[in-house]
Amino acid sequence: MTGTTHDGFFTPVSGVDLPRFAGIPTFMRLPHVPFDHARFGEVEIGLIGAPWDGGTTNRPGPRHGPRQLRDLSTMIRAKNGATWVAPFELCKCADLGDVAPNPADLMDSLDRMEAFYAKVKAAGVVPLTGGGDHLCTLPILRGLARGGEALGLIQFDSHTDLNDVYFGTGKYTHGTPFRRAVEEGLVDPKRYVLVGIRGTAYGREDWDFAEANGIRIIAIDEFHRRGPEDVMEEVRSIVGTKPTYVTYDIDFVDPTFAPGTGTPEVGGPNSWAALLVARLLKGVDVVGADLVEVSPPFDTVGGTAWLGVNLMFEMLCVMAERVAERRG
Amino acid sequence: MTGTTHDGFFTPVSGVDLPRFAGIPTFMRLPHVPFDHARFGEVEIGLIGAPWDGGTTNRPGPRHGPRQLRDLSTMIRAKNGATWVAPFELCKCADLGDVAPNPADLMDSLDRMEAFYAKVKAAGVVPLTGGGDHLCTLPILRGLARGGEALGLIQFDSHTDLNDVYFGTGKYTHGTPFRRAVEEGLVDPKRYVLVGIRGTAYGREDWDFAEANGIRIIAIDEFHRRGPEDVMEEVRSIVGTKPTYVTYDIDFVDPTFAPGTGTPEVGGPNSWAALLVARLLKGVDVVGADLVEVSPPFDTVGGTAWLGVNLMFEMLCVMAERVAERRG
Amino acid sequence: MTGTTHDGFFTPVSGVDLPRFAGIPTFMRLPHVPFDHARFGEVEIGLIGAPWDGGTTNRPGPRHGPRQLRDLSTMIRAKNGATWVAPFELCKCADLGDVAPNPADLMDSLDRMEAFYAKVKAAGVVPLTGGGDHLCTLPILRGLARGGEALGLIQFDSHTDLNDVYFGTGKYTHGTPFRRAVEEGLVDPKRYVLVGIRGTAYGREDWDFAEANGIRIIAIDEFHRRGPEDVMEEVRSIVGTKPTYVTYDIDFVDPTFAPGTGTPEVGGPNSWAALLVARLLKGVDVVGADLVEVSPPFDTVGGTAWLGVNLMFEMLCVMAERVAERRG
Amino acid sequence: MTGTTHDGFFTPVSGVDLPRFAGIPTFMRLPHVPFDHARFGEVEIGLIGAPWDGGTTNRPGPRHGPRQLRDLSTMIRAKNGATWVAPFELCKCADLGDVAPNPADLMDSLDRMEAFYAKVKAAGVVPLTGGGDHLCTLPILRGLARGGEALGLIQFDSHTDLNDVYFGTGKYTHGTPFRRAVEEGLVDPKRYVLVGIRGTAYGREDWDFAEANGIRIIAIDEFHRRGPEDVMEEVRSIVGTKPTYVTYDIDFVDPTFAPGTGTPEVGGPNSWAALLVARLLKGVDVVGADLVEVSPPFDTVGGTAWLGVNLMFEMLCVMAERVAERRG
Amino acid sequence: MTGTTHDGFFTPVSGVDLPRFAGIPTFMRLPHVPFDHARFGEVEIGLIGAPWDGGTTNRPGPRHGPRQLRDLSTMIRAKNGATWVAPFELCKCADLGDVAPNPADLMDSLDRMEAFYAKVKAAGVVPLTGGGDHLCTLPILRGLARGGEALGLIQFDSHTDLNDVYFGTGKYTHGTPFRRAVEEGLVDPKRYVLVGIRGTAYGREDWDFAEANGIRIIAIDEFHRRGPEDVMEEVRSIVGTKPTYVTYDIDFVDPTFAPGTGTPEVGGPNSWAALLVARLLKGVDVVGADLVEVSPPFDTVGGTAWLGVNLMFEMLCVMAERVAERRG
Amino acid sequence: MTGTTHDGFFTPVSGVDLPRFAGIPTFMRLPHVPFDHARFGEVEIGLIGAPWDGGTTNRPGPRHGPRQLRDLSTMIRAKNGATWVAPFELCKCADLGDVAPNPADLMDSLDRMEAFYAKVKAAGVVPLTGGGDHLCTLPILRGLARGGEALGLIQFDSHTDLNDVYFGTGKYTHGTPFRRAVEEGLVDPKRYVLVGIRGTAYGREDWDFAEANGIRIIAIDEFHRRGPEDVMEEVRSIVGTKPTYVTYDIDFVDPTFAPGTGTPEVGGPNSWAALLVARLLKGVDVVGADLVEVSPPFDTVGGTAWLGVNLMFEMLCVMAERVAERRG
Repeated sequence: MTGTTHDGFFTPVSGVDLPRFAGIPTFMRLPHVPFDHARFGEVEIGLIGAPWDGGTTNRPGPRHGPRQLRDLSTMIRAKNGATWVAPFELCKCADLGDVAPNPADLMDSLDRMEAFYAKVKAAGVVPLTGGGDHLCTLPILRGLARGGEALGLIQFDSHTDLNDVYFGTGKYTHGTPFRRAVEEGLVDPKRYVLVGIRGTAYGREDWDFAEANGIRIIAIDEFHRRGPEDVMEEVRSIVGTKPTYVTYDIDFVDPTFAPGTGTPEVGGPNSWAALLVARLLKGVDVVGADLVEVSPPFDTVGGTAWLGVNLMFEMLCVMAERVAERRG
Repeated sequence: MTGTTHDGFFTPVSGVDLPRFAGIPTFMRLPHVPFDHARFGEVEIGLIGAPWDGGTTNRPGPRHGPRQLRDLSTMIRAKNGATWVAPFELCKCADLGDVAPNPADLMDSLDRMEAFYAKVKAAGVVPLTGGGDHLCTLPILRGLARGGEALGLIQFDSHTDLNDVYFGTGKYTHGTPFRRAVEEGLVDPKRYVLVGIRGTAYGREDWDFAEANGIRIIAIDEFHRRGPEDVMEEVRSIVGTKPTYVTYDIDFVDPTFAPGTGTPEVGGPNSWAALLVARLLKGVDVVGADLVEVSPPFDTVGGTAWLGVNLMFEMLCVMAERVAERRG
Repeated sequence: MTGTTHDGFFTPVSGVDLPRFAGIPTFMRLPHVPFDHARFGEVEIGLIGAPWDGGTTNRPGPRHGPRQLRDLSTMIRAKNGATWVAPFELCKCADLGDVAPNPADLMDSLDRMEAFYAKVKAAGVVPLTGGGDHLCTLPILRGLARGGEALGLIQFDSHTDLNDVYFGTGKYTHGTPFRRAVEEGLVDPKRYVLVGIRGTAYGREDWDFAEANGIRIIAIDEFHRRGPEDVMEEVRSIVGTKPTYVTYDIDFVDPTFAPGTGTPEVGGPNSWAALLVARLLKGVDVVGADLVEVSPPFDTVGGTAWLGVNLMFEMLCVMAERVAERRG
Repeated sequence: MTGTTHDGFFTPVSGVDLPRFAGIPTFMRLPHVPFDHARFGEVEIGLIGAPWDGGTTNRPGPRHGPRQLRDLSTMIRAKNGATWVAPFELCKCADLGDVAPNPADLMDSLDRMEAFYAKVKAAGVVPLTGGGDHLCTLPILRGLARGGEALGLIQFDSHTDLNDVYFGTGKYTHGTPFRRAVEEGLVDPKRYVLVGIRGTAYGREDWDFAEANGIRIIAIDEFHRRGPEDVMEEVRSIVGTKPTYVTYDIDFVDPTFAPGTGTPEVGGPNSWAALLVARLLKGVDVVGADLVEVSPPFDTVGGTAWLGVNLMFEMLCVMAERVAERRG
Repeated sequence: MTGTTHDGFFTPVSGVDLPRFAGIPTFMRLPHVPFDHARFGEVEIGLIGAPWDGGTTNRPGPRHGPRQLRDLSTMIRAKNGATWVAPFELCKCADLGDVAPNPADLMDSLDRMEAFYAKVKAAGVVPLTGGGDHLCTLPILRGLARGGEALGLIQFDSHTDLNDVYFGTGKYTHGTPFRRAVEEGLVDPKRYVLVGIRGTAYGREDWDFAEANGIRIIAIDEFHRRGPEDVMEEVRSIVGTKPTYVTYDIDFVDPTFAPGTGTPEVGGPNSWAALLVARLLKGVDVVGADLVEVSPPFDTVGGTAWLGVNLMFEMLCVMAERVAERRG
Repeated sequence: MTGTTHDGFFTPVSGVDLPRFAGIPTFMRLPHVPFDHARFGEVEIGLIGAPWDGGTTNRPGPRHGPRQLRDLSTMIRAKNGATWVAPFELCKCADLGDVAPNPADLMDSLDRMEAFYAKVKAAGVVPLTGGGDHLCTLPILRGLARGGEALGLIQFDSHTDLNDVYFGTGKYTHGTPFRRAVEEGLVDPKRYVLVGIRGTAYGREDWDFAEANGIRIIAIDEFHRRGPEDVMEEVRSIVGTKPTYVTYDIDFVDPTFAPGTGTPEVGGPNSWAALLVARLLKGVDVVGADLVEVSPPFDTVGGTAWLGVNLMFEMLCVMAERVAERRG
C-alpha cells in the first residue's frame, strides 16, 4: 500500500492478503474504532451503521441493512478503478460501529441518533452512514446542523419524502423527514435538490411544498432526457460551495438493479448512471452522506448491498479528496 | 356441501369448483364480511388479520403475515380429514378483514386494535386472528377482557414473552405482552399455562415472575418427554371449563418446520405434534384464538404460512364445535 | 381524493389511510364488484384476473399471476406521477374478480373465458386483464370481437405467437393464439403490429405468415435503434382511430427486469422503455388490454409483478382518458 | 467396482473418479440407453423420466421433476449404506430417457405414455419412473397391465387420488388416477393399500369408494401410532406374493422434508420413516415403481429431489434383488 | 449480568441493550481479541473461524460458514435455557477472529492452520472453531496434538471421512482427514467413536479401516433405535476421562434441519436430538471442538447456521464447565 | 430442418417436437459425442463443459456452471432470430461432455485440462467451452497453442486477470491466467485486447503490465461512451485475420443482468450490449471460445445461465460461419 500519508493502522486489509470472505466484516475492512477507542481522535471520516427502520410505513427490513452492507463491503478494494482516487491513503477512515436505536420507541430512537451524530460532529469526523430507512437522515441532520447554519442537501431518490403526515398521527416516518428538516431549519430549501423522483403519487402536496419553498425537483423523465452529466452540473450549481449533505436512497436506482428495498419504483436509472451521479459529486463540500433503504430481505443474493457499498465508496472518494484538500 | 344448517352464503368456495389458485384470497375462501356488511350480524366466528409488527425487537416481517396466510389458506378444504369436523357447516364463519394498525405509532396501534376487538366482542363474534407479532395479543385481550372477568390463557410458544422492559423504555414489545396482560388483570395467572419454552435466555426474571404468580410453564424438555397427549391433558385441566383464550406463536414449532418467523429457537416440536396440540384443545371453552409471528420474508415458499393456516383450521374446528354446542 | 366525479365507492383505499400491506388484496385496492354485485352496472373499466396457463408449452406458472399481481398492486397509488392522470377520478373502475378456468380441460377453459368476456362486453365494461399465459388473449378476443368487426391489435412481445401447431396436435397453445385470431377474423392483420420480437427461432414460418398477411413486425434491433417514441408513433398510425386491443406480454421486457416469466428472451427493453411504450398508447381507442405471462415461481421477490402492475396502471390511464372522452 | 456380474458398461460413474457435479446428468450416472440403443436388449431395470404435469389441478411444476431428480441423483453412490445391497452389481440398470408428453393435449399425452410403457414391458424391462404428476401413474399402469392380470398396488401418499371428477369435466387429473385404474381393472382393489392419507378433505366420497371396493387406507394417525415396521408388515401381507406396482407420491412425506411439491399436507412422516417404508418393501414382487409430484419450483435448493432420488434408490435396491432372484 | 467472576470486558452485548441485528457481528457478540490484543493472555476459550473449503470434493461453500455463523450467533443469549449454564460467567471467552487460509494452495493452507492452532494451544486457550469444511479438523488436530499424546475423538457425522484417496492424487480432502489423523498418531483409534453414519456408499474400505483399527462406528439405524441418551452414554465411556476432541459435522443432522451443507444425507437426527448429543457431552474432557461444513449458499434464510451456533453454544457450555472445573 | 448439409444425427432436438423441459440436457440438445464415440471424427465444433473453480480466490460456484448452462441451453432454438444464421445446419456440432478436473489438486487439474484440449485440437475440432472459473482458460490456451504460434486474444471481462500472485504463493488463480499466458508465449500481447474493465482495484500493477506489453485495455467508461459497434470495430482490427481465441467472462455483463457470478462489478453493459459484442465478432478467425464464471449458487432462477447460453449461441454462430467458410 504505497503512497499513504499515515501508518498502517487505518489501512484496510487487502483481499490479496486475506481472502475477502474471511475476517470479521467491518465496513470496507477498516479498523473498528468506536468512540472510546484510543485512536478515535485521529479519525477523519467515520463509516457508521444505522440499523433502524422505525419510520417505515410499508415493507420493513432496512434495520438489517448495515450488517449486509458491511458483509458485501469486504469485496471493496483500495482504489477507484475509474478515477484512481485512493481514499484510504488520502485520509484516515474507520468503522465507528452502529448507532444504537430503540426498536420499540420511535422518539427515543430519534434522540439517540441525534446525540450520536452530534458527538461525531464535535469530534470533527465526517460521517458516511449506511442505513437504515430514510427517517434516519433526519436525526443525522439534526446532529450535524441543529443550532448552526442550514445545510445544502442533495437527495437521490424515487420519492420526495416531503409528505406531511401518515395514518393521522405519523409526523415522523420515512416519507416525511425532509418536510421536517426544512421546517426545522436544518436544510436550506434554496440549496436543496432532489433527483430521480417518479412512480405513482398520493397527490401533489409534496410537489406543492417544494415549489412553495424553492426546492428543485428533477423528475425521472428529465433525468433520462438530460443524462447524468448535465443533471449533475445543475445539481452542483444549486448547492454551490457551502457545506452540503448528500442522502442517497437506494430506491433512486431502478429496482431491477436494487431489488432489496421496501418501496421500489420502476423505470429508474441503471447501475452505471447510479455510479456516475455519485462520482460527479466531485467538488461539492460534502460534510456528511448516507446510503439508505437497503433492505436485505428483498434481495437474497446481496446485489443491492453490493451496489450500495460501491455507491458508498464513490461518495467516500469525493469526501476523502475534500478532507485532504481542507487539511491542506 | 351437505349437512350445513345455513344457506350457501357462508360456505367457502370449493377447490373442486374453482381452482385453489384462482379468486381473491380471503381466509379459507370465506365471504368477506366487514363490520358494515349487511350480514355481519349473523357471523359467529370471525377470521381477522392483524398486519402489524410494531412490537418486534428483532427481525421484522409479521406485518406481512395475514396476506400470506390468506393466500395459502385457499388450499384448505371443508372438512377435517382426521376428525371429520366440518366447521363451516357447524356455524357461520366469515373473513372480517384486517384490523388497521398505524405503523408509525405504537400506542395508537394498540388503541385501534383494542377498539376493533371490543366491537367484535360486542357483536358476539368469536375471533380467530392471524398475526402480526405477539404484541398483537395484548390489545386483543384488552378488547375481549377489559372490565370483565380475567380469562384463562393457553400459550404455545418458544419464549415466555413475560419480560418486563427492553432498551430501557420498551414496556410494549413482542417480548412483554403477557407480563402486561397479567398486570392489567386480563389474564388469570392461575389459569395460564405456557407450552414449549426453550432456547437461550437473557436471565431468569421471566421464570421468576411466572413462579411468583402461579403461572405454569411446560418447557420443551418436559414436552418432548411426556408427549402431546399427556401435556394437553394437564393444559385442559389448568384452564378448566371457564372462558379461555388460546395464543399460538408459530415459533412454538421447530424452525425447520416453520422457518418464516423472526426469533426462531431450535429443537421444537415437529408438524405432527404442532397439529395435535391444537386438536387436543377440544373441550376447552375457547373465546378467541390467534396464530402469530408468521413472517413471510423468512419463508420463500410459504411452508410456514401453510402450516399456520392448518393450525388455524384445527383451532377453528374446536371453536366451531363449541359455538354450535353453546347455540344448542 | 379531490376532483372525482363519482361517490367514494369506486375510490381505492389509500396507503396513507391503511398501510399497503394490510387488507384483502384486490387489484389496485379497488372494490370487488362481481357480475352479481348491486353496483356492477355502473362499472366502466373492469380489472380481471385470468389464472390459467393451460396453453403453456414450456415452463408453467402464469396461473399464479393474477394473485401476485393483485398483491403487488396494493402499492399502486392514485395518480400517475409523470402525466398526473388520475384514472380512478376519471371513471369508475372495479375488480371484477377472476374468470374461472378448468385446469384439466383446455377446450372447456377457452369456452368459459369467451363467455365471461362476452358478458363483460355486453355490459359495456372495458376489460383490463392480468394473466395467465398468452393463450388467454384468444378467448378474450373472441368474447370482444366474435361476430363483430375485426379489431386492431398492438402486441408487445418477444415472440410472435404466430406459430401454427406444437407437438403434432397443439393448435391452441401460448405460441399460436394470434395465428388463430387472424384466421378467425377477430383481428385485422392490416391493423396489427408486433413490437420487440427477438431470440432464437424454430424457423421463419411465423414471419412468413405475418408478411403474407400484411402484419407489421418491429423486431428488437429496430426497436433499440429507433427508440420508444419513434416506434410508438408508427404503432399508433398502424392501428389508427378504430377500436384496438392491446396485449402486453411481460416477456417483451428484458428478463432481468422481468425474470418471472416462463419463456424469457435476453436483450430486451429496460423498465423505462417498457413504461414509455404503454404511456405512448395515449390516443389509441383501446377497447381492452391485458398483461400476460407473469409467472411468480420464477420471481421470488415479486419484482416482475410489480413492474407488471405499473404497466397495467399506465394502460389504465390511457383507457380511463378514452372512457372519459367517449362519455363526453 | 468388485462383485458385479456384468461388464463395465452398466456401471455408474463413481464420484471418486469424476466429481459428482461433473458430467451430463443421467439417472444415478447410469448409461443413457434409449430404445434404439445397441444394448437396450440387455437392460433389466430402466430408469425413466416422465416430465408431465397435465393432470395438475393446483400448483404446477412436476414437469420439471425428472431433470432435477437426474441432477441430484449424481450424488448417489453405488451401495446402500444400511443394507449393503449393490443394485448396479445385481443387475443391468440404465437410464432410458424421458417419455415424451404433449403439454398441449392431455388425452394425447396419456396415449403416448401408455405406448411407451407397453414397449418397456414388452422388452422385459422393469421400469422405475421419476415423475411428473400423479396422473402419470395411470398410463404407466395401462402400459403394464392393460389386457393382463390386475396388479397389486402400494400407494404412499397424503391424498387418496380416488376422486371422481374435477371442475365438472375433469375425469383425468392427478386427483383421480386410481379411481380410473380400479374402474379399468388395472389394479386389484383387494390388493391395493394406501399409506399416509391426511389433510383437509373435500368430502368422504373417496373414502366411501375405497370402503365399497375393499381398498385399505392407513391414515396418518394410524401410521404415526403404529410405526413404519408394523405398518409395512400389513402392507406386504395385503399385496402378497403376486405382481405389484409401487407408487410413491413425494407428498407422502411431511412438506418440511419435501417442500418441492404442489399440494403439500402438513403432519406427515419424516425422512427416516420415508426411507424405511421404501426399504421395507423388501420381498414384494415389484414389477414397476415410481416417485412422483416432485416440483422443483417450490424447492430452491433441491432437498426434495435429493430425498426423492434416495427413495428411488431404496426402491431400486428392492427391485434389483427381485430381478436377480427371478433371473436365478 | 450477575454472578460473573470477571470484569465486563468478556461479557457479550445483550439483546436487551442493543438489538440483535445491530453491531459488528463477532461470535456470540463477544469481544474480538486477536493474538496481538492486550488482553489475549486472559482468554480461556477462544471462538475461531476457519473460512476454508479447499478440501471439498463436491459442492463448495463452507468457506463462507464463519461469517454466517457469526451473523446468526448474535441471536444467542447469555444462558442455557435448559441447563441454566452461563458459559460467559464461568470463564473468559473471546472471538479470536479467523485463521487465514490460502484458497489457491491446499498444502500452504494446512500449514497456516496448524501453526495458528499450535499458537492457540501454547497460549492455553481451548479452541471452539466454526468451519470451514471437514479437512480443517486435520490441521487443528495437528496443532493441538502433534508431538504429544494422541487425543480421543468424538465425531458426529453422516460420513466416516475415513477414505484414503480421491481422484487418484487426493490424500487431503474433506473425505479423508481422519484416516490421516489416525495414521499420523494424532488420534487414538481406541478412543475414537463416530455417530450418525449413513447414506449411500462408495464401498466398504472406510468401514474396514475402522474395524481394523478398533474405531467404533454407530450408524444411523442404531442411533435411531437406541436414542441419544443411550448412545451418548456409550460415547462417553469410549473416550473416558482423558483429553478428547469433538468434531461436529453439521451433516450429522438431517438435511431438512440443516440444508446448508454440501454433501447431505437424508434420514438423519432432528434438531432436538442434535442438541441433546451436544449437551450430553457433559463430563468429557473436551480440549477443543468444532462445528464444520455449514455452507451458506445452500441455505438462503440461515436456518442451518442458526442451528449450528446453537450447537456451538451447547458445546461451549460443556467446555466452560470443564474449564472452570480445571481452574478450580 | 431444411437446408442442412448433413444427416439428422447432428441436428438438435426441437422444442416443437419434444418440450424443452424434457430429455437429458446436453448443450443445446445436441448429441453427446465423447472422444470414444463412433462419430467423433466428424465433429467440427465441440461444446465442452469445464466444471472446475479451483482457481477461485473469492466466492466459489463455477464448478456447477456447466450443468446449469446445459440445463438452460435446452431453451435455445435452431436459428439466430436476428441474423438468421443457422449454426447447426452450417456445420456438425456436438456436446463432447465435460473435461474431468481434480477438485483436490490444482496442478493436476491444469494438466488434465491441457491434455483434453490438446486432443480436441489434434482432432481438428473447434472448442466452445462453458466454464468453470477463469483459470480454466489457461490450460485451454496451453492445449491449443503450446508449441505453436501465439494466438490473438479477445477478453470480455470486468477484471484484467493480469495479476501476478495471490496470498504469497498463488501463481495460478482466476486473477492471474493471462499474465501466465503472455509469459508462456501462448498469447500475442500485440493482438490481445480486453473490454469492459472496471470496479475497485488493488493497485495498478496489472495495468502497468498491460502497458509494458502493448496489451490494449478498453475500460468501461470508454465502452459506455463509444458503444459496442465502435469498440468492436477496434477489437477486430487489433486481432486482425490471424487465429484468435475469445474468452467471455460473464462478469463482463452488469451483475444485475448476470448475478450468478462470484466477483461481480457493478456498472457494466446490459444484456443487449452483451449480445451485440458477441455478434460483432463476425469475421474474426475464432479458433476457440469460452464463457466462464457462471456461478449457479448466486442465481436461483437461472437467468445468468440463460444469458450465458445465449452468448454461447452468438459465438457459435460466428464460429460456425467461419468453419463453413474454411471448409469451403
